[in-house]
Amino acid sequence: MARRFGITLALLVTACSAPSRPASVPSSPQDPALAIRWGLVIHGGAGVITRAKLTPEREAAIREMLAQALREGHAILARGGSSLDAVTRTIVLLEDSPLFNAGTGAVFTHDGTNELDAAIMVGTTRAAGSVAGVRTVKNPILLARALMERSPHVMLVGAGADAFAVVAGVERVEPAYFFTPERWQQLQDKLAAEQAAGAVLATPDDKLGTVGAVALDHARGLAAGTSTGGTTNKRYGRVGDSPVIGAGTYADTSCAVSATGHGEHFIRHAVAHEICARRAYLRLPLARAAHEVVMEDLVKVDGEGGVIALDRDGHVAMPFNSPGMYRGYIGEDGVPHVMIFVE
Amino acid sequence: MARRFGITLALLVTACSAPSRPASVPSSPQDPALAIRWGLVIHGGAGVITRAKLTPEREAAIREMLAQALREGHAILARGGSSLDAVTRTIVLLEDSPLFNAGTGAVFTHDGTNELDAAIMVGTTRAAGSVAGVRTVKNPILLARALMERSPHVMLVGAGADAFAVVAGVERVEPAYFFTPERWQQLQDKLAAEQAAGAVLATPDDKLGTVGAVALDHARGLAAGTSTGGTTNKRYGRVGDSPVIGAGTYADTSCAVSATGHGEHFIRHAVAHEICARRAYLRLPLARAAHEVVMEDLVKVDGEGGVIALDRDGHVAMPFNSPGMYRGYIGEDGVPHVMIFVE
Repeated sequence: MARRFGITLALLVTACSAPSRPASVPSSPQDPALAIRWGLVIHGGAGVITRAKLTPEREAAIREMLAQALREGHAILARGGSSLDAVTRTIVLLEDSPLFNAGTGAVFTHDGTNELDAAIMVGTTRAAGSVAGVRTVKNPILLARALMERSPHVMLVGAGADAFAVVAGVERVEPAYFFTPERWQQLQDKLAAEQAAGAVLATPDDKLGTVGAVALDHARGLAAGTSTGGTTNKRYGRVGDSPVIGAGTYADTSCAVSATGHGEHFIRHAVAHEICARRAYLRLPLARAAHEVVMEDLVKVDGEGGVIALDRDGHVAMPFNSPGMYRGYIGEDGVPHVMIFVE
Repeated sequence: MARRFGITLALLVTACSAPSRPASVPSSPQDPALAIRWGLVIHGGAGVITRAKLTPEREAAIREMLAQALREGHAILARGGSSLDAVTRTIVLLEDSPLFNAGTGAVFTHDGTNELDAAIMVGTTRAAGSVAGVRTVKNPILLARALMERSPHVMLVGAGADAFAVVAGVERVEPAYFFTPERWQQLQDKLAAEQAAGAVLATPDDKLGTVGAVALDHARGLAAGTSTGGTTNKRYGRVGDSPVIGAGTYADTSCAVSATGHGEHFIRHAVAHEICARRAYLRLPLARAAHEVVMEDLVKVDGEGGVIALDRDGHVAMPFNSPGMYRGYIGEDGVPHVMIFVE
């Protein structure tokens, strides 16, 4: 690593830190029999989430928010709505909650701004929209969807993406909208620690809280979406895997994935597309394909994080190699299942 | 399509136009026996390249430039250099040539600026670097490489990427450096046509000239790289497939791909990773895997363009579904093979 730290000490943000491994990484694939007829799987980020760090109040609030998102997504699907609508609505709710690193509650960049990334994809048509480095859009997932539906383009970055929001009529907000005291304090702590150490330090917490959803509707149509504020103290317009179609977000006719974690490794492994490819071409059960990529390939390179995955047969997979991942699923019975730790 | 043209007529650029299909799309896979022990495959863009549109002088200049790039890449590999170095050098040469839509010679955005994208990836390590929307960097491929080698990050976008160039010591230039009269005229023609039509028109030529290279070195290490100026008259920070790892650029231990064409479709199909996945998991010959994706999947959605691909066994594939693709390869014998049309 010495060489990589060469000239750009000032650049280093969280991605540099070796993620702390959980005490025991689950070593077997998840229950491959977990399946729904139709429904929704969501995540609210993966990382060093431990019972010691999570107050009972915060844990309860997060669980309730995830359950609410699942119920609202379910309601859309129950009345015959599309997987795209369910994914969109669910992610909007999580963006609007300050509990997650997306929309309000997004982490701060080194410069004290918020730069948001999001992507959405429809499996049946492969229609996709992706935005990166957005600063003024209340719900980046809605901008990604507007891009997908009302333009011929798939990806917009930087100031241009904000400019497109004006044309597309997507709601914009003042920078103060994204402010939360907790995220601001995280940046101040980070900056103080950097100054004390004379270098940029990184902790795994910096990137906690990306949100995502995958859904399967009555017509067996799949969709996937992801939204994030990226990493605390990030610089230079850094973008992780969330808005990279095939890495953090992907859906086709048979498989949909949203990822969360150490974005650089997720990009290098084209995680979302890799899982779908192994399922389709190696004919692995979805849980096995997702397990291999997350618990084997990514663990080998300290690529901390996890994914949620859903296939057209309703199989659900939610593997993660970090101590925790905020996650949940809901099937046709309408009962939300919310989990945080290995449970 | 009517709905998609709704509010954002002003947004439409080339991606909207149905690409004109070539009179006869090659229907069989390329010679699967084309293989080298080590060497290099390059492209200089795909699109409506026809003998009628290409003057003999320009054709000769392009052929000579491609041959020169192949020879220089070969020289690096011949003396034991890495595939990464060969890819880097080749792409720098093509960026420095005004004949291609990368580096100087890049097309102009709607605002009369140049916004450049590039990505590079090393197969053995999956190390990768990607930059999008760069405005001041002479050789975007060198910025992508600096990012890969000297930071923990994979992707930087917008103004931040230019700021990183300062930190990384990558050569920057004034905007005038990218200016070529031909590209400027293309923008003026486009703007005039728009004004006359009252809407944004698009022609397949707008996106011609992306450059890319894949190489296999003596150690059987693969690398891939791609660099582009995007599409003439593009707006809103539009990014195509070139800098999207897994779409326009990808390399792993057994397969490397660089793509060129209608970027939106290439992103949706995760083209580069898809080809490598079919080769690895379906055990298809590389030529067959590349043929299926380019000549079948992409043709179905009017996704005009092509790829260059190389595997660790030295198999070469260069399928394209457009009338032409500037391309070539060179093996251990040091003889450059340059092609433009279906030949």
